[in-house]
Amino acid sequence: MSPTLTYRDSVAVLDLGADENRFSPEFLAAVDAHLDTVLADGATGLITTASGKFYSNGLDLDWLSANGDRTPWYVEQVQGLLARVLTLPVPSVAALPGHAFGAGAMLALAHDQRVMRADRGYFCFPEVDIRVPFTPALAALVRAKLSAEAVTAAVLTGRRFGGLEAHEYGLVDATAAAGTEVETATALLAPLGAKDQGTLGSIKSVFYADAYTALIA
Amino acid sequence: MSPTLTYRDSVAVLDLGADENRFSPEFLAAVDAHLDTVLADGATGLITTASGKFYSNGLDLDWLSANGDRTPWYVEQVQGLLARVLTLPVPSVAALPGHAFGAGAMLALAHDQRVMRADRGYFCFPEVDIRVPFTPALAALVRAKLSAEAVTAAVLTGRRFGGLEAHEYGLVDATAAAGTEVETATALLAPLGAKDQGTLGSIKSVFYADAYTALIA
Amino acid sequence: MSPTLTYRDSVAVLDLGADENRFSPEFLAAVDAHLDTVLADGATGLITTASGKFYSNGLDLDWLSANGDRTPWYVEQVQGLLARVLTLPVPSVAALPGHAFGAGAMLALAHDQRVMRADRGYFCFPEVDIRVPFTPALAALVRAKLSAEAVTAAVLTGRRFGGLEAHEYGLVDATAAAGTEVETATALLAPLGAKDQGTLGSIKSVFYADAYTALIA
Repeated sequence: MSPTLTYRDSVAVLDLGADENRFSPEFLAAVDAHLDTVLADGATGLITTASGKFYSNGLDLDWLSANGDRTPWYVEQVQGLLARVLTLPVPSVAALPGHAFGAGAMLALAHDQRVMRADRGYFCFPEVDIRVPFTPALAALVRAKLSAEAVTAAVLTGRRFGGLEAHEYGLVDATAAAGTEVETATALLAPLGAKDQGTLGSIKSVFYADAYTALIA
Repeated sequence: MSPTLTYRDSVAVLDLGADENRFSPEFLAAVDAHLDTVLADGATGLITTASGKFYSNGLDLDWLSANGDRTPWYVEQVQGLLARVLTLPVPSVAALPGHAFGAGAMLALAHDQRVMRADRGYFCFPEVDIRVPFTPALAALVRAKLSAEAVTAAVLTGRRFGGLEAHEYGLVDATAAAGTEVETATALLAPLGAKDQGTLGSIKSVFYADAYTALIA
Repeated sequence: MSPTLTYRDSVAVLDLGADENRFSPEFLAAVDAHLDTVLADGATGLITTASGKFYSNGLDLDWLSANGDRTPWYVEQVQGLLARVLTLPVPSVAALPGHAFGAGAMLALAHDQRVMRADRGYFCFPEVDIRVPFTPALAALVRAKLSAEAVTAAVLTGRRFGGLEAHEYGLVDATAAAGTEVETATALLAPLGAKDQGTLGSIKSVFYADAYTALIA
């Protein structure tokens, strides 16, 4: 299933899919095209979510092992999408109905805010346990959004955080009962009203300049 | 009304005024001169406050629209004052009896600590809604003092925070009943005792080097 | 008494000593040699602790005043040890049975996590009161581990934090009853399991690159 875009009034809801929603080249291109639509439509907010038990499991390791020579190109695509979401000129919320692992967790962090299902699913940086290093750009993204305490607790340990623990450490901003993640995200966006794209994009670019610059380098 | 300087024992209390206390060139020069006095007097602390319902409403937009050709000079003056307060070699507390908006909120952030009236007044970064971008230097100042969560909640939204909410997000360090803001600030300073100006100024300059360097560039 | 190394199963426990455990050249060399052993032994974690009422009182001011001409060399040794602990490729916890002052507090901060005795002892940066400035590298280490609020509360004030207050400000991650600091630290390490040294060292180096680079410059 490909990512699909619908609207709740003026808020765009991008469903990443019903599977593991790993970052295949097709997935990345589809998300990128949907973001073009969201901006052209003048949406007042973006919610990304998923319809299965994974928000996203991150990198497409199968594709990578079959296309090792294209790794640099692939990393550039992934980091480019993270940079775009990080500085997206509309308010953004990731609504996690389930697992967010590795680059999937980073995609969630790139949004302005995160809502996570309270009773199931894990937020996790498994890199330290699966022997995958962080690029400086990905580390800059994580540091731009998390406290030093959360970095230590999550990144250095590989620990899996349920929704309530993820909220406690600031990995997510709110939790929600199963099936109400998008509704909760909508409630977070409602009081913000419509923002001028140029201004909001500029402010995010300036505040997250270190991570943004590294991600698009 | 111009800013006025009085003392409570060895603590300097700078009243920014009874109006909106916007940063006119005269206001900036008066505050700067009072800071000279505070340092020369060997004050053991500085409290800035106000006597009306505004701590400060920030930039003097009327003056700016009448003096557009002097914008670069004006920005340099404003950032220079923020840099000076950020690294002031005496302990500093902003005691907010009311609204702190935009550059007024940034002036409060430049102090070591902030006390805000609990029941009235707003702490707010309205830039995103009035289409004013942040300079990298102002963003560096805000990032030096706030958590990533607070930056998202306050800067990307333009949301107005009452005292209790401002405290919850770490925008301010304490709240106070109406009329007791300076008293509460005084209580925060009392246990610190007198600090050596050279040492404290050096430590602030080193810890806030990114913001300081950007502000005085 | 020199630092001594023992093991609790596969976790290395480095006792810094029963005195003030100041950073004499001999102390620094002994700790460094023990860290070599810890890594060569494939320990699954490192706990540093002490057997008296001081975790460490920091710089060896007596040695420094007798060897003023070797100050640059000494600073390089101290910062080198802090850099090594900051990026140590095994999970690390400082278990504080008592006082951690100045560079002793920085050594504790260089660990992944900190446990402090709840009822006695102080965590303190006395620099502002004893007129000792911070080098940019030491400031970068402190900023890499503490929130802006904690930096202000601890570094700019010279305030002494008991265990419970230190926990409240995030200076330490947990408190423990007297005599149970190492046990509590062990419990923090247990769920982490064994980590690949290369991966964990790489991740710490990337996430703490600013501080690490400054410390070894």
